[in-house]
Amino acid sequence: MQKAKLAFIGLGDRGMSTLKFIQKQENADVVAVCDVYEERVNEGIKVVSENRDFTPSGYTDYQKLLEQKDIEGVIVTASWVGHSRIAIDAMEAGKYVAIEAGGASDIIECWELVRASERTGMPCMMLENCCYGRKELAVLNMVKKNVFGEVVHCQGGYQHDLRDIVQRAREHKHYRLAHYMHKNCESYPTHEIGPIAKWLNIHRGNQFQTLVSMSSKARGLNAFIREKYGEDDKLANYPFAQGDVVTTMIKCAGGETILLTLDTSLPRPYSRGNRIEGTRGIYMEDNNSIYIEKPSKELPPLNPHHDWESFDGYLEKYEHPLWKEFYQKQMEGGAHGGMDVFILQAFVDSVINKTPTPIDVYDTASWMAISCLSEQSINLGSTPVHFPDFTCGKWITRKPENTSKYSLDIIND
Amino acid sequence: MQKAKLAFIGLGDRGMSTLKFIQKQENADVVAVCDVYEERVNEGIKVVSENRDFTPSGYTDYQKLLEQKDIEGVIVTASWVGHSRIAIDAMEAGKYVAIEAGGASDIIECWELVRASERTGMPCMMLENCCYGRKELAVLNMVKKNVFGEVVHCQGGYQHDLRDIVQRAREHKHYRLAHYMHKNCESYPTHEIGPIAKWLNIHRGNQFQTLVSMSSKARGLNAFIREKYGEDDKLANYPFAQGDVVTTMIKCAGGETILLTLDTSLPRPYSRGNRIEGTRGIYMEDNNSIYIEKPSKELPPLNPHHDWESFDGYLEKYEHPLWKEFYQKQMEGGAHGGMDVFILQAFVDSVINKTPTPIDVYDTASWMAISCLSEQSINLGSTPVHFPDFTCGKWITRKPENTSKYSLDIIND
Repeated sequence: MQKAKLAFIGLGDRGMSTLKFIQKQENADVVAVCDVYEERVNEGIKVVSENRDFTPSGYTDYQKLLEQKDIEGVIVTASWVGHSRIAIDAMEAGKYVAIEAGGASDIIECWELVRASERTGMPCMMLENCCYGRKELAVLNMVKKNVFGEVVHCQGGYQHDLRDIVQRAREHKHYRLAHYMHKNCESYPTHEIGPIAKWLNIHRGNQFQTLVSMSSKARGLNAFIREKYGEDDKLANYPFAQGDVVTTMIKCAGGETILLTLDTSLPRPYSRGNRIEGTRGIYMEDNNSIYIEKPSKELPPLNPHHDWESFDGYLEKYEHPLWKEFYQKQMEGGAHGGMDVFILQAFVDSVINKTPTPIDVYDTASWMAISCLSEQSINLGSTPVHFPDFTCGKWITRKPENTSKYSLDIIND
Repeated sequence: MQKAKLAFIGLGDRGMSTLKFIQKQENADVVAVCDVYEERVNEGIKVVSENRDFTPSGYTDYQKLLEQKDIEGVIVTASWVGHSRIAIDAMEAGKYVAIEAGGASDIIECWELVRASERTGMPCMMLENCCYGRKELAVLNMVKKNVFGEVVHCQGGYQHDLRDIVQRAREHKHYRLAHYMHKNCESYPTHEIGPIAKWLNIHRGNQFQTLVSMSSKARGLNAFIREKYGEDDKLANYPFAQGDVVTTMIKCAGGETILLTLDTSLPRPYSRGNRIEGTRGIYMEDNNSIYIEKPSKELPPLNPHHDWESFDGYLEKYEHPLWKEFYQKQMEGGAHGGMDVFILQAFVDSVINKTPTPIDVYDTASWMAISCLSEQSINLGSTPVHFPDFTCGKWITRKPENTSKYSLDIIND
C-alpha cells in the first residue's frame, strides 16, 4: 500500500482531534508534529507512537519541521492569525499543503498563497469538510444532472451557537474570543461557501465579483455572560465588536447571487441553512424540503402544484458515489461523520498520486478572502467591495478537474 | 350602528375582490366607485346594489369622486403607478385614505404622501394585511412580552411563484408584466416589512437607516414561457429587467438588521420566510419552529438543548386577541383568511371614530420607499443608500399608539 508521509503544524483542539482521527487512516503516516507549546508536541508524539510502529519527530519551530525531507504533505491546523504564513512557507519547502478553515485578515494573505502555489507548483487545499457533506454532495450531483435547471441563487450559513465556546476561551488557549472582542466580519464563511462555490463552478467558468456585508449589533455574548456569571463579570458589558448576525451578499460573473449568514452568538439550533434555486426548482435545508417542477408534458397545466416534498427521496436518488461507498462499506466517520474521512482522504490521495487537490489554491484563497472583504464592507458602511480575481482571468477557460473519486468538479458515477 | 361611508378608486382584480368582501362588513357602506374603465364602474355599482338598499355613485374621473361630500374614507386600489397621486388628492379633499400594497417609483412620492397627511391631518394607511397575519401577530405579541429577549435580526420575503400571473398580463390589464420587463427592484416588500417594522418599533423609537440590495439574473420567466409556449413566443427570449431573486438588507437605528427577499419568478412554494432572532431565541416560519432558551435557574447548565420546537404551542399560547376573537366568534375571513377582515376593520374603525390609523403615513411611506431605494442600490452596483427619515426626527420620541383593538403598537389583552 502506498502511504502519504504527513506532518501536523498546530495541535490545538482541531489539530489534535484530526491527528487522532488520521491514525485510523492506513494510507497516511504522520512523521512529524509541531506546536509552539511543548506539552502539545509531546501529546502529539504520544498519539502517533501508540498507533504506529515508529515515533514521529517533534518540533516547536515549524521552520525546522519544514526542513525534514521525507515529509510530503503538511496539515496546517494553526490559528487564524499565522496559518497563511505557515502554508506559504510549507509550499516553498516543496510540500503539499492542507489548511484548516478560517478567513484571512487581509487580502494580501490570499494573494501570497496563490502566488506561492503558482511559483512552487505545490497545491494548497483548504480542509473544508462541508464540501463533502452528504446533503451538499447530493445537491452537487443534482446540479450536475441539471435537476434545478439554470441555477440563479444560493444561500448558506454558519449558524452555530458558539457563545459558551467563545467566552470559555478565557480559560484555555483559543483565539476566537479575542477576534470577537476586536473584529467584526464574516469570520467563518467556508462551511457554506465551499459547497456553494462548487455548485456554481467558481474558477471554472464563473467567478465571485462583488461582495457586500451588513452586521447587526452585538448583544448575544453580553446577555449570555450576564446570565451565566452575573453583572459583575468583567465581560458582562464588554462592547464586543463582532455583530451577532452578519449577512453577506456576493454577485457572481454568471449573474448568480449568494447569500451568507454568520450567526454564532445567539441561542439557536445548528444549521448551515443551505438553499439553492434554479429555473426548475428549489432545495432548502431548513425544512429538509425540495420543490422540483415537472415538465409540462408530464403534468399540464404547468406548475399546478406548489407543495414542498421531503428531500429524503432525492437524497437517496442522488446520493453521491462517495456516500454510497461509505454506507456500503460501513466506513467509520470522524467527529463530523463521513465528511471528515473524505476531506482527509482527498488530500492524502493527491499527495500519494502527486495530482492536483480537488480544492485548489484559488478556492482556498477566495473562500478565505470573504472574511477580510466583509470586514472592509462593514467598516465602510456596507459598501460593495471588489472581489479580486485570484486566477487573473484564467477562470474563464479553466476546465473541470477530474482529480480522483474525490473530485468536486466531476461526479464519477 | 355607526357606519363608515367609503369609496373605491381602482377596480382591478384586487379592488373588485375587496369591494365584494367589504359588502359582508355591516359597518361599512361603499357610496361611490371609480375606475378608468366604465365596464368596471358598472360592475362595481352592481356589486354594491345587490348587497345594499342604495345605489353608489359611479365615476371614471377620481377627481369628481373626491368632490362627493359624504365620502369619509377612500380605498385606493389603483395600480402601482398613480396610486400615490390619488392618495394625496384624497387627503387634500379631507378623506381618510387606505392604499393597497405596492412600492414607490421615486422617493418624492413618499415625501408627498407624508407632507399631504401632515398638512391635512388625514391619515394614509397602507392596507398591508400581513400585519394582521396570525403568525405575524403572535410574534408581535411575543416581542412585546420579551420572549425573544432583545431583538437583533429579522427576515422576511415575498416568495411567491407569479410566473404565470406575470406573463398572462398580456391577456388582461395588469401592470406587473411591464414592470418586470423594464425595472429591477424589491418591488413588493410590504408583506414582510410591515410586520417586521412593527416588531422593531419603527418610527416609535427606531428607524430604518441604510439599505442595500443585490439582484440575481433574470431567467425564470424566459424558461417558463419557453416551456409553456415554445421558443417562438415573442417573450421567450425577452431580456427581462427584474432579477429572479432580489435580496435587500436594512440597518436600523437600534442596531438591528433586516433581510428581505423578493422571489417571484422561479418555481417554488409560497413563503413569507419570516424569522426573528433575539438574545433569548429564534422563530423561523419555514420549518414552523422556534427555539427559546430556558432561564439558567430552570435548566442549568445554560443552553444544553439546541433542538427546534414546533411553533404550534407558542402560536396557541401567544395567540393575538384579534385571532382569539376570530376563532371564538367563527368570523368569516376574506381571500387571505382573517387578516383581510382585520386590515379593513382597522381602517373602518378609524374612519368611524376619527382616530389615527394603526398603520400611519410614516409607515406607509417608508414601506413604499423600499422599492425605489432598492432600485437605486441595484442600479449603483449594490451601493448602500440612505433611508430618509420621513418623521424628520420625531421617531426618537414618538410613543406607541393605542388606536383601537387593531393597534399594532400595543397588545390589548
